[in-house]
Amino acid sequence: MTREARTPLLKRQHLLAIDDISPLEAISLLDLAERYVEVSRQTDKRQPVLQGRTQVNLFFEASTRTQSSFEIAGKRLGADVMNMAVATSSVSKGETLLDTAMTINAMQPDFLVVRHQSSGAAELLAQKVSCAVINAGDGQHEHPTQALLDALTIRRHKKGFEGLTVAICGDVLHSRVARSNIHLLNKLGARVRVVAPSTLLPSGIANFGVEVHRSMETGLRGADVVMMLRLQLERMTGAFVPSIREYYRFYSLNADTLKLAKPDAMVMHPGPMNRGIEIDSDVADGVQSVIREQVEMGVAVRMAVLDALSRNLPRGGYA
Amino acid sequence: MTREARTPLLKRQHLLAIDDISPLEAISLLDLAERYVEVSRQTDKRQPVLQGRTQVNLFFEASTRTQSSFEIAGKRLGADVMNMAVATSSVSKGETLLDTAMTINAMQPDFLVVRHQSSGAAELLAQKVSCAVINAGDGQHEHPTQALLDALTIRRHKKGFEGLTVAICGDVLHSRVARSNIHLLNKLGARVRVVAPSTLLPSGIANFGVEVHRSMETGLRGADVVMMLRLQLERMTGAFVPSIREYYRFYSLNADTLKLAKPDAMVMHPGPMNRGIEIDSDVADGVQSVIREQVEMGVAVRMAVLDALSRNLPRGGYA
Amino acid sequence: MTREARTPLLKRQHLLAIDDISPLEAISLLDLAERYVEVSRQTDKRQPVLQGRTQVNLFFEASTRTQSSFEIAGKRLGADVMNMAVATSSVSKGETLLDTAMTINAMQPDFLVVRHQSSGAAELLAQKVSCAVINAGDGQHEHPTQALLDALTIRRHKKGFEGLTVAICGDVLHSRVARSNIHLLNKLGARVRVVAPSTLLPSGIANFGVEVHRSMETGLRGADVVMMLRLQLERMTGAFVPSIREYYRFYSLNADTLKLAKPDAMVMHPGPMNRGIEIDSDVADGVQSVIREQVEMGVAVRMAVLDALSRNLPRGGYA
Repeated sequence: MTREARTPLLKRQHLLAIDDISPLEAISLLDLAERYVEVSRQTDKRQPVLQGRTQVNLFFEASTRTQSSFEIAGKRLGADVMNMAVATSSVSKGETLLDTAMTINAMQPDFLVVRHQSSGAAELLAQKVSCAVINAGDGQHEHPTQALLDALTIRRHKKGFEGLTVAICGDVLHSRVARSNIHLLNKLGARVRVVAPSTLLPSGIANFGVEVHRSMETGLRGADVVMMLRLQLERMTGAFVPSIREYYRFYSLNADTLKLAKPDAMVMHPGPMNRGIEIDSDVADGVQSVIREQVEMGVAVRMAVLDALSRNLPRGGYA
Repeated sequence: MTREARTPLLKRQHLLAIDDISPLEAISLLDLAERYVEVSRQTDKRQPVLQGRTQVNLFFEASTRTQSSFEIAGKRLGADVMNMAVATSSVSKGETLLDTAMTINAMQPDFLVVRHQSSGAAELLAQKVSCAVINAGDGQHEHPTQALLDALTIRRHKKGFEGLTVAICGDVLHSRVARSNIHLLNKLGARVRVVAPSTLLPSGIANFGVEVHRSMETGLRGADVVMMLRLQLERMTGAFVPSIREYYRFYSLNADTLKLAKPDAMVMHPGPMNRGIEIDSDVADGVQSVIREQVEMGVAVRMAVLDALSRNLPRGGYA
Repeated sequence: MTREARTPLLKRQHLLAIDDISPLEAISLLDLAERYVEVSRQTDKRQPVLQGRTQVNLFFEASTRTQSSFEIAGKRLGADVMNMAVATSSVSKGETLLDTAMTINAMQPDFLVVRHQSSGAAELLAQKVSCAVINAGDGQHEHPTQALLDALTIRRHKKGFEGLTVAICGDVLHSRVARSNIHLLNKLGARVRVVAPSTLLPSGIANFGVEVHRSMETGLRGADVVMMLRLQLERMTGAFVPSIREYYRFYSLNADTLKLAKPDAMVMHPGPMNRGIEIDSDVADGVQSVIREQVEMGVAVRMAVLDALSRNLPRGGYA
């Protein structure tokens, strides 16, 4: 973490999607994050490698959890962090997004952490600004730092990814978390299954390199990792599930369904949980759960991503 | 304030209620706060004893005044401060509270400053997290830093507490400020009176070690300190006062009723004031008022509390 | 920017209106701001001349752009910055304003950056507090840092102000930006025109030392700078314009009307823009536009103002 050790780690300027990083780069990020796990457990959690840098968190969708994680990550690295919560107007959202981004860019930030309800928003911004853009979730597209923190959590328990079976269960259709995880876990050599009713699977899911299961019985059998997804009732405009009660009966993770997986299977959830819908409390809080560790890994992974991207920023100043 | 001088000052990990501190510990906190009064009056107000620490302000109830005071206190001590305003959902508040707290705790903060509308919320959190929890007001229960800042303000004018008569007047029923003040002032040796109509007194108030007065005439006679409470109209679900006009007539502090107290009696109010209801502007802004000094003492006391609690946090890092 | 170089630069304690600064002081602020433009383009943007200072941004009106600019400015100078968004109650606004300000003042800030919907609010506050007050926009009165950043942008392109013709076009009536710009540009030696329909001109505008034009044809002819104003539909309580379509037809800046000005005329707008109403996108994003540079200059000017005002704050501490 000394200045001398700050050799380049990533090829790209931005982190917009898992495809922006190679498997080796992903592993390097996880290794760097491990060091930031240790830093965050110390009394003095400051590692001022971003001293004098400006980080702007531009959230068009509210997300207490992700925004806090990025804010703490930036501050522990010594950056000046500014939060901007932006309510999107109902008209000309594209313009609002770009004008807002160009305005912020003119204030010379080094990082723009963006969450937006439209898929592709982060990439659109990245084409227009001179700083590093980090996608903190765009529509139903990607949420790459979530996939990285999930990978870090898995690696700490299972040592590696080769030969692991990861079952991603529930509302895959609306989940950028699922999409980013599928891409990254595939890249790292794990076997990925998705487990969901047909109405909650994106069309063409079979082309993602995953096994598709319609039942927990077959989907969880032999799984090393059970990753539950939040049922995103707020994104559902039609009748995706017959009823919450039926969804619970067939697709929730509880003490019984968890027994279908391997005895040492990890239980994961990106949060916030709908307890009693996609996951039962005794499983969420049980010995196999790593849900709180995921949150801790989130800060460490974001510190690693900010640190890594900062190494690619121009040194002699901006134009 | 040097690192060497940072000897332990408190026995407990948290500050949830006045009962968490002994009279001697309270005096030590006031002494430390006096030094932070001086620091905050300097050009350079930074005393980085919390450098590298993370402070999260978790406010389930809006409070510009208290949150700002804690934010400034933490920043002057060099901590990384993060504000989280959390809107509570109407269902399963207990779960929301705990899940939110556990999520934040996983981000490895050192301090969690909590305000919540339910009595006992801070204590519930403290049982679950590994950091230090400071109660910034929970329901109608306690608000310990308010009592400490009031004590500091009183001590600066009256030198000590022995033999002092403090009249706490108004909406005692809904007031965590009153409750914390009664406990602390009793502990420090002052004589405490409460002055209110029966409808605004909690049942069993006589067991709190206070004199109970139903009229300003008897309650203010000979008082050294007149502490007015905010009439918490927003917390009143029934008919606690016949009318604002009658309340004003019988229980407000104005130039006439203030004459009932000692000529050098201090006028206090925790704010925000309902001018013209529980207190008249000429008294609030008059020479006997220390209301603004209370605000200044608030920052100093919170710096002292943060500093003192930090000395009890684990040194070698967290598990 | 070293401590030794921090000689006094301004005579007054506050920046409430352009009249608070002499032409020479304005030039000094612009010179200092030029240095902060360079600082903000570096990798390490920190110039900790305000280390240990407390800056409070007190915004009674939402303004993402201005508040962000002041926040970044303060943080780059090393100050502890606290944002307070205050919803004004519908009653006794005067009291709310003063009580809020006095409460904050008691927390010993060094700077109070204030935006308020009432003209004169910043001046009222300045009479009551001991810190430096910066007016970030008060009603339809003044917005002095906007005028300074506009002047800096103009000077960078036109070298000086003598002999320049600046056309300020559109909703002059509701614009504190126009008012502050008129005062500053007059002070610096430029010739100022206002171009607007009679309904959007304040009464007595002729006494402001400006040429008044009712048509873009005459108003833009020979202009070196075309400064468009936002049509403040949200402030209009009556029928100020017959229709948006007519306003666009007669008073918008587009490729055709821009040709009326000098071929190298600068196009300015304080933002946020109503694209397609007072300005067309091809002009806003065209080669003559300096709209994004204005935003960049905004941060630099605010750094200069904070730095300059800090030199007048009491050194030995506050009373």
